[in-house]
Amino acid sequence: MPPRYLILADGDFGPMTSKTANSVIRFLPDQIVAVLDRQQAGRSVADVLGFGGAIPVVGSMTEGLALGPTAVLVGIAPQGGRLPAEWRTWLLEAVDAGCELWSGLHTFLADDAELADRARVRGVRILDLRRPPPDLPIASGLARTVEPYVVLTVGTDCNVGKMTAQLRLVQGLRAQGLRTRFVATGQTGIMIEGWGIAVDAVVADFIAGAAERLVLEGAPDADVLLVEGQGSINHPGYSGVTLGLLHGSCPDGLILCHQASREYLGDYRRTSEFRIPPLPQYVRWYEDLAGAVHPTRVVGISMNTYDLDEAAARTACARAADSTGLPCTDPVRFDPAPLVDAVAAGRAAYLRARAG
Amino acid sequence: MPPRYLILADGDFGPMTSKTANSVIRFLPDQIVAVLDRQQAGRSVADVLGFGGAIPVVGSMTEGLALGPTAVLVGIAPQGGRLPAEWRTWLLEAVDAGCELWSGLHTFLADDAELADRARVRGVRILDLRRPPPDLPIASGLARTVEPYVVLTVGTDCNVGKMTAQLRLVQGLRAQGLRTRFVATGQTGIMIEGWGIAVDAVVADFIAGAAERLVLEGAPDADVLLVEGQGSINHPGYSGVTLGLLHGSCPDGLILCHQASREYLGDYRRTSEFRIPPLPQYVRWYEDLAGAVHPTRVVGISMNTYDLDEAAARTACARAADSTGLPCTDPVRFDPAPLVDAVAAGRAAYLRARAG
Repeated sequence: MPPRYLILADGDFGPMTSKTANSVIRFLPDQIVAVLDRQQAGRSVADVLGFGGAIPVVGSMTEGLALGPTAVLVGIAPQGGRLPAEWRTWLLEAVDAGCELWSGLHTFLADDAELADRARVRGVRILDLRRPPPDLPIASGLARTVEPYVVLTVGTDCNVGKMTAQLRLVQGLRAQGLRTRFVATGQTGIMIEGWGIAVDAVVADFIAGAAERLVLEGAPDADVLLVEGQGSINHPGYSGVTLGLLHGSCPDGLILCHQASREYLGDYRRTSEFRIPPLPQYVRWYEDLAGAVHPTRVVGISMNTYDLDEAAARTACARAADSTGLPCTDPVRFDPAPLVDAVAAGRAAYLRARAG
Repeated sequence: MPPRYLILADGDFGPMTSKTANSVIRFLPDQIVAVLDRQQAGRSVADVLGFGGAIPVVGSMTEGLALGPTAVLVGIAPQGGRLPAEWRTWLLEAVDAGCELWSGLHTFLADDAELADRARVRGVRILDLRRPPPDLPIASGLARTVEPYVVLTVGTDCNVGKMTAQLRLVQGLRAQGLRTRFVATGQTGIMIEGWGIAVDAVVADFIAGAAERLVLEGAPDADVLLVEGQGSINHPGYSGVTLGLLHGSCPDGLILCHQASREYLGDYRRTSEFRIPPLPQYVRWYEDLAGAVHPTRVVGISMNTYDLDEAAARTACARAADSTGLPCTDPVRFDPAPLVDAVAAGRAAYLRARAG
């Protein structure tokens, strides 16, 4: 039986802040019993996010546990990924109540001696989804050789919708008869897909190697691999992960992801002085750098318009399409078909080029 | 008293293979008692490398220990950095003889229970130079704000001389009255300098953060920081480390390092199909990408000509200078003055620009 989750997102539950919580709610809504956030307690998830229906937001662990979760899922990933000190008490409480712990934090819950002991005594598992597998390779460009058409999402910033874009395309591609597999490279994707490696958590020399291994493992019996992107090529903190993933996964096509209203890197957190350059600059950067290992083309733009009205959202998509000459849609808000078709067309062109 | 090293480089001691061994020999020659390599036993280090004088190459640990080392230094860094199984026996023998262990491997010697126990019993230290410090930050571009002129070496490939180039400039810059500090970002640099972080060994999210911390720590009372570069922006395995270091250290100037005879990435190991593009392409890549966080310019070219005769070496330098419009020398073989002057001139221009 799949787990029933109580999601911890205390103090940070909101449309742009609690990224892990929100994605798990979006893609596994039937498995969520409640969200714990003292600031939003009493509201519904739909009140806070604009989706997620009547799932309640509760104000204490006791209240959450009363709703019968089988697992507590850490639903926010603070910068640096470390565990807020006061959450430990709640997690101990959850373990004592018989709940599993699912976490994508950089600090592994199972390395906390008290949590690990209590979980062992109670007979519940602690799943640290960011813990890297042993014996990753140094990448050597081997992912160039796989059969399926490999698509990577790349972004203008962190947290613009690189995972969500891919997950929204799976059904449409399968409907076209293409055997399509989502390849998770972050903790949230792994929670949703049940498979993957958090590439930002591996030792730096093995970023590309982790991506290479995922593509090689995902390739058999697939026509399309949709690889979850990370970070941004111009991000002062995370660009290394972005480039390692780009060179390790050897994508044949890219989808560029942007949030229409965002002007500065990370400005949903208001922390940055780095202005986001125009989309064509990103197209050049990503195609140019990827091409050092394996040639690729941006095939479409995925636009996040969550904070715009519909007219503004449609204008943003039209402008992006105009400035790049590429199809653009918001695959969450509107029909993802333009991006589904762009991937299918990209694959057809790729197969023709390979055959000829 | 500084350690007296026996260097382990068994089976891989040579001009282009045993990078760590060779650099420690080059910069700390008076501290090396012998090199252990069964294939080259009986020769001198100068016979094998072309420098290093009469330091003997021995064929067994017993023979090496008889020469009175106080430490055994692991002198090769195989791809992936893991410890060859048969070396364990030798390291145990060395510990029992009272030697410290110095290692830059990804596999930490101190995590080997038997080695750790025996070292504890014998009262000797195990120094794993790649072990990252705890609590590294996510970089935020903070290194842009430091006082000194920051120079990073960048390369056309791994193992072309990015650390050596910087170490050859220190004296010349100090002779011009510039307080100059070398900032080590790899295990060999840390062995030589006694300070630094191996940025390729940190968790991927913290590559740039490690570089940022090093620049902030190195800045006080310095006029010039010479930051050791890693990898290459187009390397299928290591590019993520390269870009994280570029964005985290926020260099004001770059020195581009190349090995004149190399045509393919990694071809000293004959493992790659990736052709090395012309130098101006690298200048564009590095300046363009660095500029997303902090503007920088390539100020000179450092050319590794170890396998060419003198006429060919001078021709290679002249051609590189011609194709890039930048000063170029081999700072190991020839006078490093052109690069020293380029850094000093770069700093002067930087100070003028900042003042005006």
